[in-house]
Amino acid sequence: MSLAIISPGRNPQVWIDALRHHQPDIDIQVFPDIDRPEEVEMALLWQHPPGYLSNFPNLRLISSLGAGVDHILSDPAVPAHMPIVRIVDEKLTWSMTNYVVMGVLNFHRQITRYQADQKRKVWDMSNPEIPVKVGVMGVGALGGDVLDKLNYMGFKVAGFGFSEKSGFPHPYYSKNELKDFLSRINVLVCLLPLTQDTEGILNLDLFRQCTPGTFLINVARGKHLAEEDLIPALDQGFLSGALLDVYRVEPLPQDHPFWQESRIQLTPHIASVTNPLAASPQIIDNFNRLKSNRPLQNLVNRARGY
Amino acid sequence: MSLAIISPGRNPQVWIDALRHHQPDIDIQVFPDIDRPEEVEMALLWQHPPGYLSNFPNLRLISSLGAGVDHILSDPAVPAHMPIVRIVDEKLTWSMTNYVVMGVLNFHRQITRYQADQKRKVWDMSNPEIPVKVGVMGVGALGGDVLDKLNYMGFKVAGFGFSEKSGFPHPYYSKNELKDFLSRINVLVCLLPLTQDTEGILNLDLFRQCTPGTFLINVARGKHLAEEDLIPALDQGFLSGALLDVYRVEPLPQDHPFWQESRIQLTPHIASVTNPLAASPQIIDNFNRLKSNRPLQNLVNRARGY
Repeated sequence: MSLAIISPGRNPQVWIDALRHHQPDIDIQVFPDIDRPEEVEMALLWQHPPGYLSNFPNLRLISSLGAGVDHILSDPAVPAHMPIVRIVDEKLTWSMTNYVVMGVLNFHRQITRYQADQKRKVWDMSNPEIPVKVGVMGVGALGGDVLDKLNYMGFKVAGFGFSEKSGFPHPYYSKNELKDFLSRINVLVCLLPLTQDTEGILNLDLFRQCTPGTFLINVARGKHLAEEDLIPALDQGFLSGALLDVYRVEPLPQDHPFWQESRIQLTPHIASVTNPLAASPQIIDNFNRLKSNRPLQNLVNRARGY
Repeated sequence: MSLAIISPGRNPQVWIDALRHHQPDIDIQVFPDIDRPEEVEMALLWQHPPGYLSNFPNLRLISSLGAGVDHILSDPAVPAHMPIVRIVDEKLTWSMTNYVVMGVLNFHRQITRYQADQKRKVWDMSNPEIPVKVGVMGVGALGGDVLDKLNYMGFKVAGFGFSEKSGFPHPYYSKNELKDFLSRINVLVCLLPLTQDTEGILNLDLFRQCTPGTFLINVARGKHLAEEDLIPALDQGFLSGALLDVYRVEPLPQDHPFWQESRIQLTPHIASVTNPLAASPQIIDNFNRLKSNRPLQNLVNRARGY
């Protein structure tokens, strides 16, 4: 029984080392050098070539190498009843929250204004804080932690999601209350899963409903944002700035207009990076559960998309 | 009985409005137009002209217009037994903590690195986090809140102060354990009061004992830092960068080398700014306590210096 790592364009060695650190005798084969495909029963995927899984006649389980599974579900060749698991990692949540809180505080305390003032040797003490209310779209493990931490720090927060919720510990707005949600906040954080419902949700129609001057933080997936709408939304004042970590095409193409737009701050998909050493025990656990036909952990609900 | 506001070079109108908002009939006189000095029994001070208080024969109470009182204690003409009170404002604490957490997160998540990468259109996903342990010098209301919030966010923290403490909720190092404290942290936050013990404490001798590459955040007073030692400490690698909000001379002089030093980020003393509307009730309360000879609130211990 063999585990395949299929993660083209990324160095798989850190994953091999981490998995062997936890289970030295594990049988790992690595794309593209998989010479015993019939022995592969579990595949670890990150942006695999679509259709590639048909090489594995005995595949029984797919695991994402991260928290997201949109890169798996978008391949129509993935068998409909194949179980899919994902990484649920507290360290992922921690990093994500820190990144978002950083973005919120930099907007609230106007770091880019003071950087520009420093360059021009300007001492301007006026209006040192922009009052903020932070809205988080997507209130799962990641969004929930962002809400908890910001609330503890004394910020006003609200959550938005597609389903109805009762007993949620923060103000919550569901699908039909988007307009109301957007009118009550001026920092908009996207932490939604990427599904048919959410692809392109951050578009000019939505931005038009925002409190004027809203600051956007997208740390979910590039496809949540209609990228062509962002600069128009800034030009029209619906948004005042954005912090982006994810893009439709990654790495961001050299001729992309975001690179040179001073109102947009870019980071190269580093808000939250799966730590192989921390995540490997989960992968090994599911591998061993598969071996002994025990129930799997962190199973993805494919109808829901996460 | 009259209240004098003596705050040269700042617009006193926001204070007048805020005080009258809470007590419309309060008798306020404002420097330099004080024509009934004999009626002044309480003086609100921010950087008053040294010696100026001798104009008030019936003065009974001095209040700082902020949390700090070093600007008062540094005037030898302030009578030795005159009570001094200061502003204790949750909003001050909130703003200060947000500023410090912003500084910690920007170092941890390398915001300036990604800003530079964006300018050069560089996509570099390597090593997205610098591990941090945050040490806070000064563990009063402000330092304590910074420690609590960072600890809640999951960061390792330690406090340093001049006195011995038992039962402190975070690792704590006192006066003789400075070297040990500095060796355990790589972000150094100064929130000390300015006293004879602490003036110039951030100097090359101290920086030499830091973990190499320590990031400095000074949000206390400019005089805590031996400013001439900062760039040498960066050049020698004791420090890797600094975020400063306070300076020996404010506004920072145009020819000061900090303006153009990319490893130093400057803000114009805005980390925590007293909110007149929030602080006025305390001032009025002490004014009324003075009137009726009741015990004062937020009295400064002059021997201690805060």
